[in-house]
Amino acid sequence: MVRAYAAFKPGEELKPFEYDLGPLGSEDVEIDVAYCGICHSDLSMLKNDWGMSEYPIVPGHEVIGKIASVGSEVKKLKPGQLVGLGWNSRSCMTCEWCMSGNHNLCLTVEATIVGRYGGFADKVRAHSSWAIPLPEGIDPVAAGPLFCGGITVFNPIVQFDVKPTDRVGVIGIGGLGHMALKFLHAWGCDVTAFSTSPDKEAEARELGANHFINSRDPNALKSVENSFDLILSTVNADLDWNTYIACLRPKGKLHFVGVVPNPLSTNIFPLISGQKSISGSPLGSPATTAKMLDFAARHKIEPIIEIFEFDQVNEAIERLHSGKARYRLVLKH
Amino acid sequence: MVRAYAAFKPGEELKPFEYDLGPLGSEDVEIDVAYCGICHSDLSMLKNDWGMSEYPIVPGHEVIGKIASVGSEVKKLKPGQLVGLGWNSRSCMTCEWCMSGNHNLCLTVEATIVGRYGGFADKVRAHSSWAIPLPEGIDPVAAGPLFCGGITVFNPIVQFDVKPTDRVGVIGIGGLGHMALKFLHAWGCDVTAFSTSPDKEAEARELGANHFINSRDPNALKSVENSFDLILSTVNADLDWNTYIACLRPKGKLHFVGVVPNPLSTNIFPLISGQKSISGSPLGSPATTAKMLDFAARHKIEPIIEIFEFDQVNEAIERLHSGKARYRLVLKH
Repeated sequence: MVRAYAAFKPGEELKPFEYDLGPLGSEDVEIDVAYCGICHSDLSMLKNDWGMSEYPIVPGHEVIGKIASVGSEVKKLKPGQLVGLGWNSRSCMTCEWCMSGNHNLCLTVEATIVGRYGGFADKVRAHSSWAIPLPEGIDPVAAGPLFCGGITVFNPIVQFDVKPTDRVGVIGIGGLGHMALKFLHAWGCDVTAFSTSPDKEAEARELGANHFINSRDPNALKSVENSFDLILSTVNADLDWNTYIACLRPKGKLHFVGVVPNPLSTNIFPLISGQKSISGSPLGSPATTAKMLDFAARHKIEPIIEIFEFDQVNEAIERLHSGKARYRLVLKH
Repeated sequence: MVRAYAAFKPGEELKPFEYDLGPLGSEDVEIDVAYCGICHSDLSMLKNDWGMSEYPIVPGHEVIGKIASVGSEVKKLKPGQLVGLGWNSRSCMTCEWCMSGNHNLCLTVEATIVGRYGGFADKVRAHSSWAIPLPEGIDPVAAGPLFCGGITVFNPIVQFDVKPTDRVGVIGIGGLGHMALKFLHAWGCDVTAFSTSPDKEAEARELGANHFINSRDPNALKSVENSFDLILSTVNADLDWNTYIACLRPKGKLHFVGVVPNPLSTNIFPLISGQKSISGSPLGSPATTAKMLDFAARHKIEPIIEIFEFDQVNEAIERLHSGKARYRLVLKH
């Protein structure tokens, strides 16, 4: 039996929950969960914000642990191997997207906590392609959040072919944004942090920002018009996006990895005159995740975390909910 | 003296107008206008729709003619050479955009009919870099519209690295759209025309469309969900853009070359989940224009035009305004 923590109704506290996962699929692996990050999307799923939660729900999609067992057709992974598992845990492996290395864009990609049980448990399963080995130099305690928040901000750097000569802005210095600053700094970019909290300036600079903009100050925003090749929005808030489009240089991209509550309203004329774009991207493929881990190991990049015991899961969720977490939370067994 | 046609107030008929352009700049050329296309943006400028018209205004920015004289520093062009001139007629030639071959993105790029006199005249001037020689195989009578409408739809094919394996949609079969169909067909793409006029289907297919979608039919739009790598919007109308975003495949782009009247409202979630984007682009650089002309000559691509004498300029404008033009109008001396 798997021993887990589940919520039985939207918004309820998590309680112990046990289940049997049945026989292991031939291409699947079972992971002994050692650590599991808590992500804002766990909170959204617990509350059924996106209308796709099924109860009881076992959250957790930033898993680190050792392979406990492998299915009969699994070739690359062996029991005892240390792996991570993120938001996605399966894709069809046959469509054009899977076959072209874009597994995260597979139209039937399966999320770890949607319609199945996630990582707030002692065991979790996944298709073997989505369990990514941790390279040397990655600390397993802090690695979980790389598999959701980390890959979310790393993926656009790869997908949009960001250059070390680029000037990049990051909106929001939180769970996603603080990792974006670290990655972009190591990538060699000129990095600007946009935040509504001026008291975060010193920390933003430590994380890798070369510049800091108080995004509540219209003059500060005005001063960086026509400056950025890429602005990465990590926030879940409605901002005046036309202001940020004005901050892009010609050919600049305003890229969303945070879901904003309301439809975006934007004038087309500035996009046309400056050859600018608005875009988004979801997580990353297994290959890009492995690339991120290698890059993170070489550059000693890891999220800043706070650690809780698994039986403190409700306190940890409350802490994340309060907005006080700096910056990601990890549960450990 | 230059003999031209000008409007003296917004919306007024054009009347004969003469002026002296003074000494020719050292890097400039003077062109004897043989033909000049009429573009929807001439109409917008005549009515001061964009608030940047100065009166008297001499429209015309799709010029074909021979070089009459060249400034002292002009190296590449000679009197008698046949050239075209489009929306832009000057850029700074020193900024990073000019220096990287993106002259159309120069922040001080000068438009042929903004604050200066355009091509509804017997002579017009431009910086020599913006007067592009016509290659063999381009018919000068029909070439004018390539320099505004043509480059507007050709430029994104180059900028976004469209592949012959791509599936591309074109919204609107008009002055811009009919050229887009021709270019994309010659590019080797699978081309779909979106139009509100089902009676345009046969012509759209002749122009190069492999498929035709009546964009007033929700079932037809539904049937092409998740289909396109690129959708090029050439219309000046507000559509339900979320429907077209749904028609994009993962990594697909909704690209605007037509200015839509109202801010675009779009949900961010489909952009994130499908790694999709919304973008725009303005005309093209001299180098891309030359590339387009070479491609058009090799593939025998030219706009479909109706020809008017220069002294019929007001009738021609009225025809364009009526929406009956098929598809571009050209004035000839």
